[in-house]
Amino acid sequence: MTNVGIQVKQISKHYRHRDALKGVSLNFAPGKIYGLLGRNGAGKSTLLNIIANRIFASSGEITFDGVAFKNNDQALGQCYLMSEVNLYPDGDKLSRLFQNTELFYGSFDYAYAHRLARKFELDLHQKFGKLSTGYRSIFKLIVALASPTRYVFFDEPVLGLDANHRELFYRELVDNYAKTNRTFVISTHLIEEIAAMVEHVFIIKSGELIVDDEVEHLLTQGYLITGTKADVQAYCQGMKVLGHENLGSLYGCYVLLEDGTLPATPANITTERLDLQRLFVQLTNIDEEELDA
Amino acid sequence: MTNVGIQVKQISKHYRHRDALKGVSLNFAPGKIYGLLGRNGAGKSTLLNIIANRIFASSGEITFDGVAFKNNDQALGQCYLMSEVNLYPDGDKLSRLFQNTELFYGSFDYAYAHRLARKFELDLHQKFGKLSTGYRSIFKLIVALASPTRYVFFDEPVLGLDANHRELFYRELVDNYAKTNRTFVISTHLIEEIAAMVEHVFIIKSGELIVDDEVEHLLTQGYLITGTKADVQAYCQGMKVLGHENLGSLYGCYVLLEDGTLPATPANITTERLDLQRLFVQLTNIDEEELDA
Repeated sequence: MTNVGIQVKQISKHYRHRDALKGVSLNFAPGKIYGLLGRNGAGKSTLLNIIANRIFASSGEITFDGVAFKNNDQALGQCYLMSEVNLYPDGDKLSRLFQNTELFYGSFDYAYAHRLARKFELDLHQKFGKLSTGYRSIFKLIVALASPTRYVFFDEPVLGLDANHRELFYRELVDNYAKTNRTFVISTHLIEEIAAMVEHVFIIKSGELIVDDEVEHLLTQGYLITGTKADVQAYCQGMKVLGHENLGSLYGCYVLLEDGTLPATPANITTERLDLQRLFVQLTNIDEEELDA
Repeated sequence: MTNVGIQVKQISKHYRHRDALKGVSLNFAPGKIYGLLGRNGAGKSTLLNIIANRIFASSGEITFDGVAFKNNDQALGQCYLMSEVNLYPDGDKLSRLFQNTELFYGSFDYAYAHRLARKFELDLHQKFGKLSTGYRSIFKLIVALASPTRYVFFDEPVLGLDANHRELFYRELVDNYAKTNRTFVISTHLIEEIAAMVEHVFIIKSGELIVDDEVEHLLTQGYLITGTKADVQAYCQGMKVLGHENLGSLYGCYVLLEDGTLPATPANITTERLDLQRLFVQLTNIDEEELDA
C-alpha cells in the first residue's frame, strides 16, 4: 500500500532569479501529524501552495492515493490549506464565510466552529476585514478544524496569537486528531511548541529536503559536546559536525550521529541531547564559510 | 534616588467604547532588562505608544529622571520604540533610513548596523517596501540596537522571524546590554524564549497591572498540584487557585503562593514548578465563570 496518501515526487519550482524547490520528494500518509520545517524563504509555502493547486510546479508530480493530483477535484476536495494569504472578502461577516467553506467542501461542522469561536472569544458577527492579525489567524484555524477534509495543512497557524490562544489551538488540534484520525501538516517557526505532538518531520533547506524522519528517531541523533577546544575536537573526530560555539573558556560542538550512539565519554567532556528547535537551528544555519565569503 | 529612570504614574487611556489602560503605575530603572507581558489587546502597545509620545494618555503622568515627559525633547531623545507599525516610506532604501535615525537621535552606530545586517543576511540596498514581514522586523531590530538611546522598547520584536534569527537577535541583545548597560523593555508573546534574559516582569491584564516582580521571585510562586480531585482540593484549601485541569483520571490545580513555600506534601500529591509562560497563561486566562456567562 505504498501509494496511499499524498505522494510528492521530484517537485521543482523555478522562478526567474531563483529555484524555490529543487526536486523535493516526500509522502504524507493518512492519520498522521507532520511538521514541515524550514527557515524563512526555504520553500515550505511554495510546496504547500503547489499541493493546494494555488500555484503550479515547474516539474514533478503529486498523486493522491495513487492518482494524479492535477485536475483531480476529488483529491483537491480532501485537502484544506490554512495560510497567511487572506482569501476572504473584507466586507463579509465571519458566520457567512463558514457557508462558503461548506459550498466548496460539501460539508462543514457549524456546531463545532461555533464552540471553537466561543473558546477563542471570537465574535462571529464581525466582518473579516475588521480583525487583527491574531484574530485573522484564529478565524482561519477554526475554519480549518471544522472543515471535513482528510488532509489539513497549516502554514504559520499561530502568527500573532498570544500564549493562551496558542495553547488552546494545540489542545484543540490534538483533540480533533484523536476524534477524526486525519492528517495534519504543520509548518511553523515555533518548533519547540509543536515538537511533542508531531510524529514525523520534514526539513527543507534552500529548496531541498534535508530531513525526512520520525521525530523520536531524529532526536536521538543530535548532541552538544562541551569541553576545552582541544578535547572536544579530538572527541568529535570523524563525527558529522553541524556547528560550534565558544562559551567563555569552553568550546561546544553540535554533532549529528547517524546511529545515535556516542562513543565512551571521557571525564573532561560533557554531552547533552538537543531539543528539536536547537537541532533544527544547527541543521539549517548558513555555513560559516558561506557567511565569510 | 527613587526618581531615576522612567516613572509611569496612574496612566489611563479611555477610548469611546472601552478603557485600554486603567491607572497603570510602574518604573523602568536604568540598566535593566524588562519583560512587558500581556494577552492580545491587554494594553501593552497602548502603554508603549504613550511613553513614546505617539498617543496621549487620558490621565496620569510620566516622568524621566524626575522631570515631566510631556514636551521634554531631551527625555524623548533617550527613548526608542521599535513597534509593529511601519513608520518608513516604502520607497526609501534601508541604508538611507539609517540616516533618518541619526538625524533624530543625534548619532547612530553605522558600523554596528552594517555588521548586524550581514549577520541577519539583510541586503541594505533594498527598499523598505520590498521586505517580507520577517525582514521588516529584522530591519527595525537593527535600527533599535544601533540607536544611541538609554531606553529601548521592543513591541513584538520577533514577529515572523525563524528560530535561527530569533536566537541571533536574543544573543545580540544580551551582547549589546553587556556593552552599554542601558535599559531594554521587551513585549512579546514568545515568553519562554525571553524568560532567561529578563530580570523583571510586568504583566498587564485588561488594562490593569497585575504583576510587578523580579522574574526569579515570581517563578518561586507558581505550582501545579496533581492528584485525585478530592486530594488536590483538600491540599489546595486556602491557596490562591489560578485554574485547574482534568488529566484523565487525575486532576491538576495551578496555584500562586505569596511566600513561595508549599505545605508538606502527602504521598498522593505531586507538585511541580511552573515556567514563566505557563504561569503567565494561568494568570491571564479569562475566568471560567466569565466564559460560562
